[in-house]
Amino acid sequence: MPLQMNRNVFITAAITGAGATQDKSPHVPRSPRDIADAAIDAAKAGAAIVHCHVRDPETGAPSRKPEYYRELTDRIRSADVDVVLNLTAGIGGDMSFGDPETPLRLDEANTDMAGASERMIHIRECLPEICTLDCGSMNFGDGEYVMTNTTGMLRATGRTMSELGVKPEIEAFDTGHLWFARQLVEEGVLDSPALVQLCMGIPWGAPNDLNTFMAMVNNIPQGWHWSGFSLGRDQMPYVAAAALAGGNVRVGLEDNLYLRKGVLATNAQLVEKAVTLLENLGANVMGPAEVREQLGLTRQSPAGGPA
Amino acid sequence: MPLQMNRNVFITAAITGAGATQDKSPHVPRSPRDIADAAIDAAKAGAAIVHCHVRDPETGAPSRKPEYYRELTDRIRSADVDVVLNLTAGIGGDMSFGDPETPLRLDEANTDMAGASERMIHIRECLPEICTLDCGSMNFGDGEYVMTNTTGMLRATGRTMSELGVKPEIEAFDTGHLWFARQLVEEGVLDSPALVQLCMGIPWGAPNDLNTFMAMVNNIPQGWHWSGFSLGRDQMPYVAAAALAGGNVRVGLEDNLYLRKGVLATNAQLVEKAVTLLENLGANVMGPAEVREQLGLTRQSPAGGPA
Amino acid sequence: MPLQMNRNVFITAAITGAGATQDKSPHVPRSPRDIADAAIDAAKAGAAIVHCHVRDPETGAPSRKPEYYRELTDRIRSADVDVVLNLTAGIGGDMSFGDPETPLRLDEANTDMAGASERMIHIRECLPEICTLDCGSMNFGDGEYVMTNTTGMLRATGRTMSELGVKPEIEAFDTGHLWFARQLVEEGVLDSPALVQLCMGIPWGAPNDLNTFMAMVNNIPQGWHWSGFSLGRDQMPYVAAAALAGGNVRVGLEDNLYLRKGVLATNAQLVEKAVTLLENLGANVMGPAEVREQLGLTRQSPAGGPA
Amino acid sequence: MPLQMNRNVFITAAITGAGATQDKSPHVPRSPRDIADAAIDAAKAGAAIVHCHVRDPETGAPSRKPEYYRELTDRIRSADVDVVLNLTAGIGGDMSFGDPETPLRLDEANTDMAGASERMIHIRECLPEICTLDCGSMNFGDGEYVMTNTTGMLRATGRTMSELGVKPEIEAFDTGHLWFARQLVEEGVLDSPALVQLCMGIPWGAPNDLNTFMAMVNNIPQGWHWSGFSLGRDQMPYVAAAALAGGNVRVGLEDNLYLRKGVLATNAQLVEKAVTLLENLGANVMGPAEVREQLGLTRQSPAGGPA
Ligand SMILES: [Zn+2]
Ligand SMILES: [Zn+2]
Ligand SMILES: [Zn+2]
Ligand SMILES: [Zn+2]
Repeated sequence: MPLQMNRNVFITAAITGAGATQDKSPHVPRSPRDIADAAIDAAKAGAAIVHCHVRDPETGAPSRKPEYYRELTDRIRSADVDVVLNLTAGIGGDMSFGDPETPLRLDEANTDMAGASERMIHIRECLPEICTLDCGSMNFGDGEYVMTNTTGMLRATGRTMSELGVKPEIEAFDTGHLWFARQLVEEGVLDSPALVQLCMGIPWGAPNDLNTFMAMVNNIPQGWHWSGFSLGRDQMPYVAAAALAGGNVRVGLEDNLYLRKGVLATNAQLVEKAVTLLENLGANVMGPAEVREQLGLTRQSPAGGPA
Repeated sequence: MPLQMNRNVFITAAITGAGATQDKSPHVPRSPRDIADAAIDAAKAGAAIVHCHVRDPETGAPSRKPEYYRELTDRIRSADVDVVLNLTAGIGGDMSFGDPETPLRLDEANTDMAGASERMIHIRECLPEICTLDCGSMNFGDGEYVMTNTTGMLRATGRTMSELGVKPEIEAFDTGHLWFARQLVEEGVLDSPALVQLCMGIPWGAPNDLNTFMAMVNNIPQGWHWSGFSLGRDQMPYVAAAALAGGNVRVGLEDNLYLRKGVLATNAQLVEKAVTLLENLGANVMGPAEVREQLGLTRQSPAGGPA
Repeated sequence: MPLQMNRNVFITAAITGAGATQDKSPHVPRSPRDIADAAIDAAKAGAAIVHCHVRDPETGAPSRKPEYYRELTDRIRSADVDVVLNLTAGIGGDMSFGDPETPLRLDEANTDMAGASERMIHIRECLPEICTLDCGSMNFGDGEYVMTNTTGMLRATGRTMSELGVKPEIEAFDTGHLWFARQLVEEGVLDSPALVQLCMGIPWGAPNDLNTFMAMVNNIPQGWHWSGFSLGRDQMPYVAAAALAGGNVRVGLEDNLYLRKGVLATNAQLVEKAVTLLENLGANVMGPAEVREQLGLTRQSPAGGPA
Repeated sequence: MPLQMNRNVFITAAITGAGATQDKSPHVPRSPRDIADAAIDAAKAGAAIVHCHVRDPETGAPSRKPEYYRELTDRIRSADVDVVLNLTAGIGGDMSFGDPETPLRLDEANTDMAGASERMIHIRECLPEICTLDCGSMNFGDGEYVMTNTTGMLRATGRTMSELGVKPEIEAFDTGHLWFARQLVEEGVLDSPALVQLCMGIPWGAPNDLNTFMAMVNNIPQGWHWSGFSLGRDQMPYVAAAALAGGNVRVGLEDNLYLRKGVLATNAQLVEKAVTLLENLGANVMGPAEVREQLGLTRQSPAGGPA
């Protein structure tokens, strides 16, 4: 019962995300080159893992073009700093319904429902060490949008990740997602110990009050690895919360644009701030090699690449 | 900090539900008459509220035909026992996607996405004292099914309920649903104090372990009314859990078919068992008049009915 | 994360206690014979364990005369019903200070501080299968009384219990007592898995709200056995709470005199009511043989008795 | 349910304590002058409140000589920096029993049980804005020592504090102490809103795991003011924990001697580190004037002093 704080913490930098943030800050990177550069800077600042989406280099709109992922991956892999690569696999689960009176007249511009194989193309090609698995469906933000990942889809894509040797980072946006993650491990779809990301305070998933957070932490099986984060001005408080509760942390522009009130941040600055926080809490910040060993990750050569 | 047990508890009997249970027990009522009879028996056994769906009288498949609701309502209203009527409004939010490789080739047989007005037809016509509001979207059971209630749909139907003077019972299947319920009250869509049902242990919403349950209970705003339930063999334990944590309870064939291992139950028997449990815990079981006063419910004449 | 309810529960009947209850109910037994009879009735009603103190047969005042314990033990051991015997070892840790202005002018009538060996005399002689270990000091009730068990005393008496082969039931009246229990196991003073009793809602130990209760439950080490109880009208609610949270239960006149408001209870009646509650929750009630196996208890012949 | 972090936090610096730390670090101040100097430095570093004990200037042993308190108070009050003065009233509740075989042969050298009036002498004389009230009895550390504050003593000294216009800071070392604090407020002994200090992880009070901490936080009545701390290397983590959970913080040499592993700290350095942590969490650090207003404190002239 003494405080089970994590005194050896890894930081994931979530570099750019898929949100409509590209016009809200000049620091949100758009092109594979810019995303890679931001990731590399974040790694130099202390992130052991970089979590990346890709965007259309012109508009900044979220994209899932494999060639962008490939360029991003190559740039990060050939950088002069070592870092664990984590690519999103959350794209392609976007349902935008029509007006409440006619829900099935889908909002096609904002609907992107890809098949399981298609959702795995860039993972299969790039073979990142980690990719995300959004472990359920829910209203994500307001309007008619539903983040949609059926249990069938999760079993199919989860199985592919396991086969490819890419470690799934299970995104649990609410308590039921974490429950289903246990189910996937029990069924053998995912390996144990699994890796979980507690995504707190994202409307309308789990709120980020500490009672809810602790209920989720208490339900992570013994031996699993986990991290937690929250959004906006709660990003830094959650660096502390996650470390205090025994987990690892995530910061970056995917979740928060500000260094402090009124001051836009770069990814590297947010990582630096997390490092400061963690060190003041008495925690050590892990490097990528240590993370690989802890999580049992294998560096793989991307398909078609040199051995 | 002394135990904040509820010593004055109301019981909701959930008579028949929409699940594929009709062939698993001869006691699951199908026709409006049978459902009404079961509801009346449940009321006589001690339920202050009856929560009803309707089914196709022949096949037992879930239905949302207004005439069935109207017959059910009339029968319950003209019964020789007083009871608060709670009709589901959860129907019409059923998305069944295609195979994981082709998700948008919907499983039409199991998809039923009604518009907001259509979802309110039977509520508008029957004017029950309470109707349900499933407060979000999530994977509900396995396969490609997603219970789908967008925030736009919830605002639209919630507003209609408020206008009709029908008290919404907010079904919170996970912590994010409860968070959004608070949002609806803050926006003025729903009135305060609201009425919440914590639906625990329904895959893949909030698991029913007590840590998760208490996190949800701790997040119910002061002054709101609430009830909680769980499924199957956890139905009776949750009668105790909900009362102990300060709430009201729900039992019935919608959530559980068995009286004890191997013995199929009637709704009335489940209510009787809940009464026994509550009385042994030292709680008083409330009647319908007391519930109406506590929740501020108004008995209304259904549209077209006698004043 | 599914509800971790205990579906195989043992009941301890706390027959008489040391409180000043003897004049508040005619059912509080005073003499060894009466206490034994009440214990035997409780066993017949379903208690697998009887927890006993002794009292002066005339006045009913708490006593720690070994001959009373011996008579009690013999009577229970020779009864026509099997039951696990649990004797208190909590006596002899009573400090009653003087007036707040002169605290060290002790209230001698209400002070009884025995040495470690003296506190173990009746345990050594009677060799019950279980004896209690009040795992700390605290204000117990109002006035100038302090329940006093120093860490040195706890190590000394705990070690004796281990040596005698008498299983200590660790009474945790607050979260710090449970923490020290873990310390005693880590030091090897007590064996693992240990047996804990969570004593909830006793002024001024841990209050019995469910948040505090769950914090304590969450801190019981994996594999330990435990039970929980509360007082007065919270006795029956805590039968449910403890079983729901995964534990075993305790009822009896030591903690509560009433069957329901205004109706004084016998021990057997309280046990019967707990059995009813547990069975309605779907739990099985364990017998003494099963408890012995689960807790690893050995029936011993009391000193000087026949082999 | 969004994170209820405190974004406007006050820091209490606990300057020297009563522990046997004086020979473990040259920075533990002993004389009233040194304690005052350390307090003033802590105030300059950002502490709004300084919590002080006094010690024998030669040996460093804890003392309760009123003249030391008077000198300390005068020095702090005449300093060139404003700070809220908080004096301990926890002294004089020290019971050290004899060997476990002979508990009532008290260890007189380590026993100091003062009467209620005597315990208030320095408070009455110095009229600090705040003084502590250790809200119960418990084993505090190992051996035969019991921190002893009976409910009668707490009522007597609490009433005196209220009469003197000195705000009690209720030290809750376990959940039962917090429960009794509510009792004192309900009885009118203490005013509402009260001020609580959650003292976490002090053997053998409440352990400092986050489940126990949150159970205590959840039991602080709405509107009360509170702070929390823990010991040693958990001091800085608890700065984060307390602010995240909505409270204020305490650091200083009473609770922790180290700035980081192997590096002894000054009080001012610990305060600076807390300021850094809080600012990185996005919190503002309050000054003494703001604290006075928030807590409703009145600056008083000490008895016999100039107006
Ligand atoms: Zn992402
Ligand atoms: Zn229903
Ligand atoms: Zn006892
Ligand atoms: Zn102090």
